[in-house]
Amino acid sequence: MRLIDLNADVGESFGNWRMGNDETVLGIVSSANVACGFHAGDPMVMAKTCEIAKRNGVSVGAHPGFADLQGFGRRPIPMSAAELETMVAYQIGAFIGIAARAGLPVAHVKAHGALYNLAEAELEVASAIARAVKAVDPALIMVGGTGSPMATAAEAAGVRFAAEGFPDRAYADDGKLLSRKLPGAVLHDPAEAAAQAVRMVVEGEIRTVGGKVLARQVNTLCIHGDEPTAGAVAGAIKAALVAAGVEIAILPKVMAA
Amino acid sequence: MRLIDLNADVGESFGNWRMGNDETVLGIVSSANVACGFHAGDPMVMAKTCEIAKRNGVSVGAHPGFADLQGFGRRPIPMSAAELETMVAYQIGAFIGIAARAGLPVAHVKAHGALYNLAEAELEVASAIARAVKAVDPALIMVGGTGSPMATAAEAAGVRFAAEGFPDRAYADDGKLLSRKLPGAVLHDPAEAAAQAVRMVVEGEIRTVGGKVLARQVNTLCIHGDEPTAGAVAGAIKAALVAAGVEIAILPKVMAA
Amino acid sequence: MRLIDLNADVGESFGNWRMGNDETVLGIVSSANVACGFHAGDPMVMAKTCEIAKRNGVSVGAHPGFADLQGFGRRPIPMSAAELETMVAYQIGAFIGIAARAGLPVAHVKAHGALYNLAEAELEVASAIARAVKAVDPALIMVGGTGSPMATAAEAAGVRFAAEGFPDRAYADDGKLLSRKLPGAVLHDPAEAAAQAVRMVVEGEIRTVGGKVLARQVNTLCIHGDEPTAGAVAGAIKAALVAAGVEIAILPKVMAA
Amino acid sequence: MRLIDLNADVGESFGNWRMGNDETVLGIVSSANVACGFHAGDPMVMAKTCEIAKRNGVSVGAHPGFADLQGFGRRPIPMSAAELETMVAYQIGAFIGIAARAGLPVAHVKAHGALYNLAEAELEVASAIARAVKAVDPALIMVGGTGSPMATAAEAAGVRFAAEGFPDRAYADDGKLLSRKLPGAVLHDPAEAAAQAVRMVVEGEIRTVGGKVLARQVNTLCIHGDEPTAGAVAGAIKAALVAAGVEIAILPKVMAA
Repeated sequence: MRLIDLNADVGESFGNWRMGNDETVLGIVSSANVACGFHAGDPMVMAKTCEIAKRNGVSVGAHPGFADLQGFGRRPIPMSAAELETMVAYQIGAFIGIAARAGLPVAHVKAHGALYNLAEAELEVASAIARAVKAVDPALIMVGGTGSPMATAAEAAGVRFAAEGFPDRAYADDGKLLSRKLPGAVLHDPAEAAAQAVRMVVEGEIRTVGGKVLARQVNTLCIHGDEPTAGAVAGAIKAALVAAGVEIAILPKVMAA
Repeated sequence: MRLIDLNADVGESFGNWRMGNDETVLGIVSSANVACGFHAGDPMVMAKTCEIAKRNGVSVGAHPGFADLQGFGRRPIPMSAAELETMVAYQIGAFIGIAARAGLPVAHVKAHGALYNLAEAELEVASAIARAVKAVDPALIMVGGTGSPMATAAEAAGVRFAAEGFPDRAYADDGKLLSRKLPGAVLHDPAEAAAQAVRMVVEGEIRTVGGKVLARQVNTLCIHGDEPTAGAVAGAIKAALVAAGVEIAILPKVMAA
Repeated sequence: MRLIDLNADVGESFGNWRMGNDETVLGIVSSANVACGFHAGDPMVMAKTCEIAKRNGVSVGAHPGFADLQGFGRRPIPMSAAELETMVAYQIGAFIGIAARAGLPVAHVKAHGALYNLAEAELEVASAIARAVKAVDPALIMVGGTGSPMATAAEAAGVRFAAEGFPDRAYADDGKLLSRKLPGAVLHDPAEAAAQAVRMVVEGEIRTVGGKVLARQVNTLCIHGDEPTAGAVAGAIKAALVAAGVEIAILPKVMAA
Repeated sequence: MRLIDLNADVGESFGNWRMGNDETVLGIVSSANVACGFHAGDPMVMAKTCEIAKRNGVSVGAHPGFADLQGFGRRPIPMSAAELETMVAYQIGAFIGIAARAGLPVAHVKAHGALYNLAEAELEVASAIARAVKAVDPALIMVGGTGSPMATAAEAAGVRFAAEGFPDRAYADDGKLLSRKLPGAVLHDPAEAAAQAVRMVVEGEIRTVGGKVLARQVNTLCIHGDEPTAGAVAGAIKAALVAAGVEIAILPKVMAA
């Protein structure tokens, strides 16, 4: 039986400001990427998110980002590789500390926003993240785009790598995500996203906007919780996968299979 | 042979701002309390401090404080016990992450500034810290004033507690530190501080400003690095202890003895 | 004809986090207290809030608070009078800078959260605020509770003072607001709040929870935008005042009458 | 008689962290660029800096930078033009508020670090700054490199522009500053810097590293306070200028001449 993990970003509130609907999202996905206080989240938000995840049997991971609350981690801040590495190690450790309080092991690390984007484009950034992951806990799974510099960096560092697919995003002919600036970049139609999810998991391939078919093995699918249509899309993806005989499982189980 | 640990606050630089003389201090003490980025320190400063500590064979501990760079963690910020606990767990975890990069185990936790002072006065605060220590790593040693609420809280939480003495501070007749607002609160005379250090370690007692002699067992002595006379005082303390046949040892060794 | 100003806190979003419904609130009130970036708000949020205020003919004021995004300015941070004064002067100036971009004069200053509460209780804090107001622009109007230390401080500093009433809050027998911790502290019934508003403005008095009637002249009424019933309460207050022959006017007009 | 202003960055301490030697620097220069709390400085530091400036008869200006304490404003943070404009307006206003407390008028605005560098390279950034200056106070003088996009932007916005020269920096053949990454970029020899200062002010020209002579009128010379040789260089520049019959004057006087 095929296994797939569904992951989503959660814990993005801060102080009195609420963001997202973590209760709903954590009822759907199997893995949670928890913001670590640099771009969103604070110790209390992180702790509450861990409690909701635990109640739902959801596996948790650190979701480190640039130290930029105002920009929500979506603005790249120039840093040396050593600065990136220590920044990520700090956030992973902090999340491990918070998760320990809830009795939760931390299973994975997925970079956020501009940090994720940089790591998908620059091997040096991806390597800094991989080194941080390895140093803090070599059993952690690093999540990134299939075939990206993050995959290369994880392998070089001796870190397990989970390849991620985006069922509600269109892919360009080079296999990369179509820029959000372009029309059609986000698949708002639940049926379309669900079909792409099944294609990724069951067929192991993606179809690009130009009609090319590329082989892509994925271990986890990224579910967005922040679009108005997110709930419907997520539900459709999950239902279609189950109907296709796929089991939704936490990332450690998927990676161990 | 008697053993004693000498601890000092280090890693208090931030970004481009330098503070303290960590190279010198880490050549004297056996344990370092490393600021965790909330009141001072940043991931790079923490990482560099770990490297200097490692080179000097110094044991490291987390030094969590209030999230208040501008006030250097010296202003109490009202928080619930749950907020305090998660704030401390976050910082301990973050430091463990950074120390892991340097291959250093984290041995202890000592609260900073206003957080330390609150925990010396209020059992609820001390208990929140003890719970955080226990949750993140039950093998950690919690450092606090001998006979203080921190000692009580650590015992209740099942956390090892290292009693701390202040050789360069005067003690009031109730056994507490004389307020820094009062004259004579800080012993600037190296000989005087050294004599108090030996009395604490060898005799297991302190002499108060009113001339009372109180029994006080200590496992570690706090060395200040931020007074102009700090270097001379620290050197005198260490020399006097060694001359009295005391061995300076890292905190884990002292606690295991 | 009697004149009254209605004021509300707005501009409390930050970065990607939304808070409040400024479009609605600024369609009701005549004066806006705009968060200045320390407890909420950022330069872009402040600028957009000014634009909405301008479109609605709403007068704007600075709403300075403690530098505490995580605590939303609701936690008192210990500071010297000089620190409080410079902190407030900074925020008033910053808001004047932003409002100038929108072509808006800044009419008043009202402290936020813990800073407001401290200034209602301690003359030293109220005086620090009054000195900051005076220094930055002596034409500014300081807003505070009628009969409070802020009134005393404003008078001593030679700053115009607008006495504020809270139509949706119950008053204790000493004339102070009933603590929010006590039942009945907030009047959720629009009719009740509207009746209290008319009593304050037309009769110049408040009725306490113990049934006492106290004389209290008010220049402005605080409208809360953050309770679920806020819209209904605000609408009822405004309608009742107009029905009672009161004109809603911006604060400078009320003070000049 | 020729007039020239000497400007330097000051007020770069933050909380407990000290940076620079403002007492010394403010005894030499005629204009101070005061950090506004985003990359350095806090309200108290800004207030104290104003007091020292006032005592020395030094004119003050706002020194806005990116909101990046950890990076000291030296890392460009991607922002829209509107975000840049409001960020700068906020900081100018904040400084006007603080300076008003000291009874000091604010004379000029000079961008800091990465913001300055961006504005020297991109007209859009320079224009955002110029619009902020114009909006907050059209009498303010904008300081930037002679012949740079900042000059163009200031003229377009109807803002007075003070052209700045760097006597202790080498110039490339295109008239721009030689990159600090290249050897010889900083003139550490006081005599060399002093000669370049006199050439700039008296001859109205610069000599490039390739030996070219370019006409460059300057209204103010930037004095660095942060190099080890800074004091000697600054003293030599000032002495040489006076010996050459140049009067050191505050920027408003230079611009009015």
